[in-house]
Amino acid sequence: MNKKSLVEQIRVKQSYLCVGLDTDIQKIPAHLRHLPDPIFEFNKQIIDATIDYAVAYKPNIAFYESLGAKGWESLARTVEYLPKNVFKIADAKRGDIGNTAQMYAKTFFEYMDFDALTVAPYMGRDSVEPFLQYPDKWLILLGLTSNSGSQDFQQTEQKNGEMLFETVIRKSKEWGNTGNMMYVAGATQTVLFEKIRKIVPDHFLLVPGVGAQGGDLAEVSRFQHADCGLLVNLSRSILYASDDKDFAQKARQVAKETAEEMGKLILV
Amino acid sequence: MNKKSLVEQIRVKQSYLCVGLDTDIQKIPAHLRHLPDPIFEFNKQIIDATIDYAVAYKPNIAFYESLGAKGWESLARTVEYLPKNVFKIADAKRGDIGNTAQMYAKTFFEYMDFDALTVAPYMGRDSVEPFLQYPDKWLILLGLTSNSGSQDFQQTEQKNGEMLFETVIRKSKEWGNTGNMMYVAGATQTVLFEKIRKIVPDHFLLVPGVGAQGGDLAEVSRFQHADCGLLVNLSRSILYASDDKDFAQKARQVAKETAEEMGKLILV
Repeated sequence: MNKKSLVEQIRVKQSYLCVGLDTDIQKIPAHLRHLPDPIFEFNKQIIDATIDYAVAYKPNIAFYESLGAKGWESLARTVEYLPKNVFKIADAKRGDIGNTAQMYAKTFFEYMDFDALTVAPYMGRDSVEPFLQYPDKWLILLGLTSNSGSQDFQQTEQKNGEMLFETVIRKSKEWGNTGNMMYVAGATQTVLFEKIRKIVPDHFLLVPGVGAQGGDLAEVSRFQHADCGLLVNLSRSILYASDDKDFAQKARQVAKETAEEMGKLILV
Repeated sequence: MNKKSLVEQIRVKQSYLCVGLDTDIQKIPAHLRHLPDPIFEFNKQIIDATIDYAVAYKPNIAFYESLGAKGWESLARTVEYLPKNVFKIADAKRGDIGNTAQMYAKTFFEYMDFDALTVAPYMGRDSVEPFLQYPDKWLILLGLTSNSGSQDFQQTEQKNGEMLFETVIRKSKEWGNTGNMMYVAGATQTVLFEKIRKIVPDHFLLVPGVGAQGGDLAEVSRFQHADCGLLVNLSRSILYASDDKDFAQKARQVAKETAEEMGKLILV
């Protein structure tokens, strides 16, 4: 999906909600567990329930991998099920040397039809570039993450006075453009968003950490740009709004309320 | 596998060779491709051919993932096939927040019986610790990688005068110990190994980059410690020593020559 189509979807739905499909076999309602593919069935119902309010979906690959080949099949079915007009993010946080990065690109952009893949920056330019060779596909680089561990290295001060995440964003933005790169910026760190927007005023940010992790939607939303420029992810607070037969209905309710709040804050 | 057993294997085989199973369906000999599981068949023959000379095997997960559920099955069969007395490394370079890291640990340490997993440090302590909760399992953290992109961030200078990889190793070594943590240190960077050994004199280093990437075995081997403390990985130069029916025999030959060179250099 190219940038124009993404912005169009945001405008039409008046929402920049991304639903994180961190689907945990231990947490899905009991009545689904006897089905042949409970993970896919859960995802399907969540997607159906939230599609009016979400512009993006983000399966967390770890949750599927942990079920082996079967989990991988549930993931492939989920991606196929997602309609063409939503932005599909593989949250895999990959990062490896060139020939391996090409394999990852093949997996997520060819074998499965994701629009974007999250990637860790530690290994530098040649670990990033293979993902930028695909038209209308996106690389989402970890900038400043939402977890406490982001302080350990991302926020260490460099000789040039920047924190590491600033150096990462400043250098890497030269490798792509606003139509094929986004950055992860955790909602728990909005005090540092000014620094990020100084370096990449026009890039999209993928923002996890609203909801279960405590980030504030209104605060995050101050960092929109003329094309909105935000995808705000909610996972657990939507998926597990109820652990009973009404899970999809309750998920829809949370997605609806979130999108309504976004509708009031949105600039496009 | 605990440290004592690993060191014992190195001593018995007089080798610290790790065979990287970067098995690429495009590169394996044509006569294997009609089999039901060509990837596993190739791995099986490579393992049989090299087992006398290698103490560790390291499947590169990207190569299996790129084949979807089928690739995941080939991987699971490969891990099952590996004998108990070799050290099994999942080269996956994962790294994510706590609840996701737990999923990765479950995948590679429970669903599959790997001894170790490679992890990227960018997300800090809580992305690393879940892997350290398993007895006799290891976390192998990226320190200084072998690719050109290692210069982009790993070698940027910090305010404290260290390069980033030094800060990463120095901080993270406090999270585990020499019996559950190793570091990746690329063989193309031996000029910086002195710095690494100053910080972690007693940890094992997993060293990629000898062979196809140009690193020198004798140079790397200067950085052994009293328990050897090195696992030197060769992938392409062993796997693809021949692309014909004699591939296993030729792989054995390269493994044998490498182990013989190691036998002359080894200190345990």
